[in-house]
Amino acid sequence: MKTNLTPPVFEDVKEARQRISEHIHRTPVLNSKQVNQKTGGQIFFKCENFQKVGAFKFRGASNAIFSLSDDEAAKGVATHSSGNHAQALALAAKLRGIPAYVVMPENAPKVKVKAVKNYGAEVTFCESTLEARESTLEKVVAQTGATFIHPYDDARIVAGQGTAALELLEDHPDLDMIIAPVGGGGLLSGTALAAKSIKPDIQVIGAEPANADDAFRSFQKGELIPVKNPDTIADGLRTSLGELPFSLIRKYVDDIVTVPEESIIEAMRYVWERMNMIIEASCAVPVAAVFDGKVDVKGKKVAIIITGGNVDLDNLPW
Amino acid sequence: MKTNLTPPVFEDVKEARQRISEHIHRTPVLNSKQVNQKTGGQIFFKCENFQKVGAFKFRGASNAIFSLSDDEAAKGVATHSSGNHAQALALAAKLRGIPAYVVMPENAPKVKVKAVKNYGAEVTFCESTLEARESTLEKVVAQTGATFIHPYDDARIVAGQGTAALELLEDHPDLDMIIAPVGGGGLLSGTALAAKSIKPDIQVIGAEPANADDAFRSFQKGELIPVKNPDTIADGLRTSLGELPFSLIRKYVDDIVTVPEESIIEAMRYVWERMNMIIEASCAVPVAAVFDGKVDVKGKKVAIIITGGNVDLDNLPW
Repeated sequence: MKTNLTPPVFEDVKEARQRISEHIHRTPVLNSKQVNQKTGGQIFFKCENFQKVGAFKFRGASNAIFSLSDDEAAKGVATHSSGNHAQALALAAKLRGIPAYVVMPENAPKVKVKAVKNYGAEVTFCESTLEARESTLEKVVAQTGATFIHPYDDARIVAGQGTAALELLEDHPDLDMIIAPVGGGGLLSGTALAAKSIKPDIQVIGAEPANADDAFRSFQKGELIPVKNPDTIADGLRTSLGELPFSLIRKYVDDIVTVPEESIIEAMRYVWERMNMIIEASCAVPVAAVFDGKVDVKGKKVAIIITGGNVDLDNLPW
Repeated sequence: MKTNLTPPVFEDVKEARQRISEHIHRTPVLNSKQVNQKTGGQIFFKCENFQKVGAFKFRGASNAIFSLSDDEAAKGVATHSSGNHAQALALAAKLRGIPAYVVMPENAPKVKVKAVKNYGAEVTFCESTLEARESTLEKVVAQTGATFIHPYDDARIVAGQGTAALELLEDHPDLDMIIAPVGGGGLLSGTALAAKSIKPDIQVIGAEPANADDAFRSFQKGELIPVKNPDTIADGLRTSLGELPFSLIRKYVDDIVTVPEESIIEAMRYVWERMNMIIEASCAVPVAAVFDGKVDVKGKKVAIIITGGNVDLDNLPW
């Protein structure tokens, strides 16, 4: 399926902010003396786990949906996803009062199917191969005329995700660094675009599981190297880096670092216990990068984007 | 041990606020569309689970410790507690640079002993009877000259706990109601004193486990009826209502309601799953009261004070 691959510019992020601010939560920024003592830096957590649908994905999805013309919107939106993007798209479509069509594999966890349906989306099941997902999505789009909204290879999505960094730099203009996890790259690229446009000397770092290090390798080599069936607990980061995000990441991101699985689980539990908030494994990745010293934060003001908090409480990794 | 039983007035809450604001977190107020839809009200969660030491108790403890004269302070502070008050007192004492002496039963959970020691307090163990705790505390006070800071039967503590309501009514001046859990009564009484002084027509409601309903019964009868070995998961609310808080609660609180254990566990899990934050069973009590319809919130703006988030992740009630 074709998507809108023209890279967004900073103006798009500012427009996204105008467009979505009445629909999203302005999430709080929390900090912890214990984390600061442990790391030697001043660490600020931008809490997108308290965003609507429990994840930053609602920013991009809202921006995409509220960017549509009335004619486009009337036909609805479609995507294939079993994760937070599907829930985000479903809720944003509901707020605009338009249909959302979500293609999901037959073996998707029931709890995720239920969540997407609860937000009012129409779910079409398919076999659990990428081919089946794409061909089913094509059929749905052909039948309905809905607009396909890719989870990250889309300028509207990237611009929407960048709005978290706008809020961060309003709340803390003196930040030295922002660290975000990288999967498809929508958040990292939007964050880097926004942050560097506001403050050119800020550092923007991506953090990735060592077991799904395609962004790290692509960044090193200067060309996209897709990942194959990565085995990581950070399920939001198993996807391969997208073409559009990569073009922005090459331009604006300073470094990408990787962390092992044990460090991710340890950092996740640390935040649950010491900060009393529920974070997904995916956003424990940048926390682990800081705890493991993969990023030098000593004496610096550093924000970490906490991307989401959707976990299965009956299946915790400890 | 004697404590300061003269009830605080509103001026004391305002002074407490001045005294402690540089030491505490101004905690965020979060809301959830799902909770609003479920209840028919607009529910605001004052997140003291993100307060230092993970609980509102840090407000009262800081106020008590920073109220001491330099001569008093030099000799330190003492208490008997195995809960959040001990940690709060230990950290506040550390910030003032004075000793904290905490008497704990020999069978206190190791994780709680460790937490109190980590904040720099000196722990004295005793047998796990109320008698042993009081006599041991008397000895510690006699030996050190430390000031005893009761966890709730103390005007400085009550005034400090009332500062959460000050912040709440600054952020949301149009609240119709505030609901707080009630154990010893420090939080509920401080909240009621502050809220009714600012806005006389606001409703202030206490919520209590049905299995530890001494505040409910005392409030109904108009005299203190202590609780005996209550069996409730809400461990922060097992203590009996204190004399000083009760005097303020009779004057300022509109109602006290009770909820069964199953509702407490269900409400706790609901908040974990839908709001991605970790809350103790104790502060699931007012949430349960709203979910069970024990308090009528339809069409109203209602704040719930989320008192803390210190739970054992290896011992969850589901």
